[in-house]
Amino acid sequence: MRRILLSFAVIAAFFQYTSAQAPRYSSVDPFIGAGGDGHIFVGPSAPFGMVKPGPDCKGHSNSGYNADKKVPLLGFSQTHVSGTGGGPKYGNIQVMPFSGDFDSIYQESARGEEIAKAGYYSIMLEKWKIKAELTTADRASFYRFVFSQKGNKAVKVDAGFFLGEPVKPDPDAREAQQFVGSEVTVVSNNEIRGYTRIRGGWNNGMAYTVYFCAVFDHPFNHFSTWKNKQLFPGKNTQFDSGDKTGAIAYFDNTAGDTIQLKIGISFISTEKARYNLDQEIADFQFNKVLQSTQQKWEQLLNRIEIDNTATQEQKIMFYTGLYHTMLMPVDRSWENPLWISDEPYYDDFYAIWDTFRSSNPLLTLISPSREVSIVNSLLNIYHRDGYMPDARSGNYNGRTQGGSNADVLIADAYVKGLQGIDYNQGLQAMLKNADVPPGGIEEKEGRGGLADYNTLGYVSTRFPRAGTRTVEYAYNDYCIATLAKGLQLDRLYDRFIKQSDNWQNLWRPYDDHGANGFILPKDPNGRWVDTIDCIVLNAPVKQMQYNPLAVDYPNCVCWWCAFFYEASSWEYSLYVPHDVKTLIRKSGGEDAFRKRLDTFFMKKYYNVSNEPSFLTPNLYHWIGRPDLSSTRIHQIIDSSYNTSAAGLPGNDDSGAMSSWLDFHMMGLFPNAGQSYYLINAPYFSKTVIHQENGKDFAIVAHHLSKKNSYIQSAKLNGVNYDKSWLEHQDIVNGGELVLEMGDKPGTWGTQVRPPSK
Amino acid sequence: MRRILLSFAVIAAFFQYTSAQAPRYSSVDPFIGAGGDGHIFVGPSAPFGMVKPGPDCKGHSNSGYNADKKVPLLGFSQTHVSGTGGGPKYGNIQVMPFSGDFDSIYQESARGEEIAKAGYYSIMLEKWKIKAELTTADRASFYRFVFSQKGNKAVKVDAGFFLGEPVKPDPDAREAQQFVGSEVTVVSNNEIRGYTRIRGGWNNGMAYTVYFCAVFDHPFNHFSTWKNKQLFPGKNTQFDSGDKTGAIAYFDNTAGDTIQLKIGISFISTEKARYNLDQEIADFQFNKVLQSTQQKWEQLLNRIEIDNTATQEQKIMFYTGLYHTMLMPVDRSWENPLWISDEPYYDDFYAIWDTFRSSNPLLTLISPSREVSIVNSLLNIYHRDGYMPDARSGNYNGRTQGGSNADVLIADAYVKGLQGIDYNQGLQAMLKNADVPPGGIEEKEGRGGLADYNTLGYVSTRFPRAGTRTVEYAYNDYCIATLAKGLQLDRLYDRFIKQSDNWQNLWRPYDDHGANGFILPKDPNGRWVDTIDCIVLNAPVKQMQYNPLAVDYPNCVCWWCAFFYEASSWEYSLYVPHDVKTLIRKSGGEDAFRKRLDTFFMKKYYNVSNEPSFLTPNLYHWIGRPDLSSTRIHQIIDSSYNTSAAGLPGNDDSGAMSSWLDFHMMGLFPNAGQSYYLINAPYFSKTVIHQENGKDFAIVAHHLSKKNSYIQSAKLNGVNYDKSWLEHQDIVNGGELVLEMGDKPGTWGTQVRPPSK
Repeated sequence: MRRILLSFAVIAAFFQYTSAQAPRYSSVDPFIGAGGDGHIFVGPSAPFGMVKPGPDCKGHSNSGYNADKKVPLLGFSQTHVSGTGGGPKYGNIQVMPFSGDFDSIYQESARGEEIAKAGYYSIMLEKWKIKAELTTADRASFYRFVFSQKGNKAVKVDAGFFLGEPVKPDPDAREAQQFVGSEVTVVSNNEIRGYTRIRGGWNNGMAYTVYFCAVFDHPFNHFSTWKNKQLFPGKNTQFDSGDKTGAIAYFDNTAGDTIQLKIGISFISTEKARYNLDQEIADFQFNKVLQSTQQKWEQLLNRIEIDNTATQEQKIMFYTGLYHTMLMPVDRSWENPLWISDEPYYDDFYAIWDTFRSSNPLLTLISPSREVSIVNSLLNIYHRDGYMPDARSGNYNGRTQGGSNADVLIADAYVKGLQGIDYNQGLQAMLKNADVPPGGIEEKEGRGGLADYNTLGYVSTRFPRAGTRTVEYAYNDYCIATLAKGLQLDRLYDRFIKQSDNWQNLWRPYDDHGANGFILPKDPNGRWVDTIDCIVLNAPVKQMQYNPLAVDYPNCVCWWCAFFYEASSWEYSLYVPHDVKTLIRKSGGEDAFRKRLDTFFMKKYYNVSNEPSFLTPNLYHWIGRPDLSSTRIHQIIDSSYNTSAAGLPGNDDSGAMSSWLDFHMMGLFPNAGQSYYLINAPYFSKTVIHQENGKDFAIVAHHLSKKNSYIQSAKLNGVNYDKSWLEHQDIVNGGELVLEMGDKPGTWGTQVRPPSK
Repeated sequence: MRRILLSFAVIAAFFQYTSAQAPRYSSVDPFIGAGGDGHIFVGPSAPFGMVKPGPDCKGHSNSGYNADKKVPLLGFSQTHVSGTGGGPKYGNIQVMPFSGDFDSIYQESARGEEIAKAGYYSIMLEKWKIKAELTTADRASFYRFVFSQKGNKAVKVDAGFFLGEPVKPDPDAREAQQFVGSEVTVVSNNEIRGYTRIRGGWNNGMAYTVYFCAVFDHPFNHFSTWKNKQLFPGKNTQFDSGDKTGAIAYFDNTAGDTIQLKIGISFISTEKARYNLDQEIADFQFNKVLQSTQQKWEQLLNRIEIDNTATQEQKIMFYTGLYHTMLMPVDRSWENPLWISDEPYYDDFYAIWDTFRSSNPLLTLISPSREVSIVNSLLNIYHRDGYMPDARSGNYNGRTQGGSNADVLIADAYVKGLQGIDYNQGLQAMLKNADVPPGGIEEKEGRGGLADYNTLGYVSTRFPRAGTRTVEYAYNDYCIATLAKGLQLDRLYDRFIKQSDNWQNLWRPYDDHGANGFILPKDPNGRWVDTIDCIVLNAPVKQMQYNPLAVDYPNCVCWWCAFFYEASSWEYSLYVPHDVKTLIRKSGGEDAFRKRLDTFFMKKYYNVSNEPSFLTPNLYHWIGRPDLSSTRIHQIIDSSYNTSAAGLPGNDDSGAMSSWLDFHMMGLFPNAGQSYYLINAPYFSKTVIHQENGKDFAIVAHHLSKKNSYIQSAKLNGVNYDKSWLEHQDIVNGGELVLEMGDKPGTWGTQVRPPSK
């Protein structure tokens, strides 16, 4: 015990030393992925921070931001998500400094210089030459507006704004946010309170309410409130009549050139928003708030240390990736308006379908205690709401894309030995998914098409997303079997290990481009379906042939009605994470499987921009060719990831894309729900994971270079190690994996195959 | 058109004249049904009023009240329901005047004289000799506290109180309300604001929030707020930390002996509560508020005029019955925190299973425009929430007792020609119930056990309440067929008219006490089930035989798990409202059916205290013996209804029991979902329905007396009328039904039978 404590102290000293030289948070570039399809949020955020103040550009993207500098700025709202696709969510309580036309509620400005760092964002509002600087705490944001031109100033606080508002209100719009109500009250000459209430958005959620308490460092000279589009000078309250409201604070010359504004946010009440503000930002010291948030990031980023041989670009990519992984879900403990509980409460699982594969496993390495809190919040949601979410936002479960993948998180926590989780309750939550149909809104939670799955052994074409659901449920069932086995529930294990073969019920002997065997649609009577009837409005054809490369959405059936969600059969026919061995056998053996994988990547059937194929580059491991896995992975990274605004190949999806990158830069990749990591050629000569338990685990790559990218041999804690995968427990125990690198494929990893069912 | 307007004016003049003599609201006695099992709310309420301030007695009943005068009073909360069973709901924002021990948050007083009238309640708080008087507007309540002893005074406002709180908090308790949060702020020296947030209750709903704004007519001298059980003198805010909060306002001698308090309530915000207060109670004139509410009652009670030969007791029973029928559901238009809509929004359908049979039909006579609003609010809930409720409270659907009986309300509105309802949308809402299983929480909404019903044609014993569900779904299907036919959707009609026979699938040839044929349990394989396995904890037996008199709940299976919900097979085997003819045939013909009915009533298999048998006393009509229907009905009324506190035979269930009584006192009874009323011997020599359309319809009984209680003949608008039922359209058209009464059964109504499918 004493040795561990000593070791802690040594590490702590080391951190202080290294971070004094160059803090890791300075390697974070929030602009990476903010353009292209990445949809990254560029404003400041604390790790898992509830509040995310940031710029909202005209036209509203999902993150509020638009990387096209020509698009003007509308203001800064306090809540955002990062990396998401589909309809927008949040963008609540928007503030904007301005001068000039004081009688207009609508304001926009051309954008000048923008700077973004971990915990910091600034922009020059060219129209008025106002520099706006933003930082944030967990539940309160902070603004410094510097007016470089003399004259009167104003700041508006808009409780009616939200992202993705349609031009005409359309309460029936799918995935669109809809206005419910708002309120503002000017409570003193430097404080404004109120809320906005919005429903809908991507997950088609019920109404959520965002309360605020905004406090200025200067008293304003006068103010107006507004309702709808009418200004009411000096009227201090606009009650909630189902209309949009807001307030404008006016300052004269005597206020100086800098106006600071801090905003507490709450999902409970305006008083709670004030409490959050007082707790987190007691005074008006911008740098104090900034430094506190930077330190929170530093503590987490420091968990993984990469050596100095990494290039500056690699460092930025890696630490920005870690940063992306910890923007969401958000910690809203004690901010849950639905029930009180001592359990943690996290929201904005957006979506677990994205994050279960590598984001949560990465978090388990960085901060297992945080992962325990997140899993416990899922169980608490199950306990109080009825189901664990696959996605959740605005305190509302929805929407399930494929399987009930929270099951994987429970199994992953279990096999990795995470303590402090009631696994019996976890099993109950998984069984709820497996046995109880979720009802009318099958997109909301649980398993849609369960009536088929639990009788036919597959989801038939009478349900949407039948292919995705079948193969993901099969893996979810494997996760249930895993937990049942651990809890020594043999009959349950027997049932679910058998059900985990259900993917085979949709496996059709079918030749396509040299590969044989695909997951293909089957009707309720067991007949293969070759033709899909097109049902979308104005479909260019009435029917389409369904083959392994077919994409039936959105031109033939709706996006969510496809046989495979956002994918083709070529992609999903390789998704059997628990039984690659059988997959290979059914594909015709190892040689055929290698050809199939080669075809998959070379003909670009692989979709780099989405999650279903996250594990696929690593499947070469199961034919004894880990070198080919590494080659594919490095090709993907080198061609699709960089430090530009378009530096992520698809929606980052709460850090999913980024965590995939980071694992591979370290030379590991998890098979979530199972206890091991596949070993690949890393990008760094040395990576050290400083674990919460005080033990370090290092991955060392001797002689690593662009040329020397093949693993020749490995030693684990000094002992020869020929397996191409590593157990999580080996990391937990602390130690060192040393890889000898060379310029040609060797025999390492070729003799044994990673686990299969 | 002109004639109608004239007619309106004449009626209005008549009303003013008659009500000047003796207002009908003075015949309302809120204490009827407040004892026994009636669970009537005794405090003041406007018709369909959102706010219901009233006394909360120690131990908390569903209505807050306890008719046992020895039970002390704890205070007056602003929200209540009336007549309900199961776990309590509401009881929010409790106020209490007191003196003496000013440092105690908990206060209780012995009860002195209590007076209750429509819109008014008063009680003497014996402990301090304080007289508390209550009246109310729709969304704001009003208190007058008269302190008859000199000295300091205090009034507490408790945002933590709610009805039915368990001794120990138990967030897993079924049907129990659970605390979520609360907040209070003293905003000036005469105003306190805040809210309470509670979840659960009878319908196991999500959290609802009740906001308040309480304004005193005197400034208080000082105040304390509290959190949990600790008082904080002078601290003006207790923010919501998930704890119970409240405030005490202290007044010294100079305040005089009367303190008045008005409280605005809202489900939106405290500002909205203030707005509601300002709109409805601008000043501190108790009598003005009282008179306004009395007038609202008078306008509605005046719709049905009974002649002066009625006894005082009959008058009180009748008008109190009308009053009970209009306490709920409550109009919360523009008070819906979930979505905004121009549609009306009603809440506290508690439950439609109770009210569809006679409460809603009674309302359709009194105020069809109100019924249209209520139906439209159901459709709006379907549109936004996904399903029409069977029950709804606190903005949350739940829980369905038997069928999807909102279907009956749609059909009832349609066949009665109510305008201003989108019946195509109504049909969609009904089809949602009929086709889409409601998911994990089958008690919440829609049709539980639908998987069985739509494949087997009955709900099998693998689902709870299989008997109730099957027979009620069959009738709900008849209602769908009715609407489909009206909308000329022939295929849909064919499907549902066929499904409406599904009750026959559980009809088992089975002899019991001289009757043959009963609805009895069947398993999924089509085998009759004779033995029920008991599954409740500590069940006295392991199995029980299931026969037509068996009651399997709660000693063998749970309350909600019974084969018949709150009933036996004897009761439910007579529930085929659309096809009594076939029911009679399957029971062995008219003679056998008469014997069966006689046995049912004489052996007391009939349960006067619950809704499933509401129509049964009228079934004699279908064997050509309407005289026997009337005899049974009068026996039931004379033995089970009176003007005492125990004067209702069971839970009034939002006026269900009372509306049954009122229809029968008028001599009519509806078969809800169908267009006619059965004609019975009335209690009044003349009843006039003053309809919203300006046309009167009178029911006249010549020579009526206790002895002359048999209808000898009838004339409709002067023409002989031998049918024992009356079409709704005949009432709408205006006119007169004249019954000649005699002392023996005659031939009237014996030759033709009321409609059957």
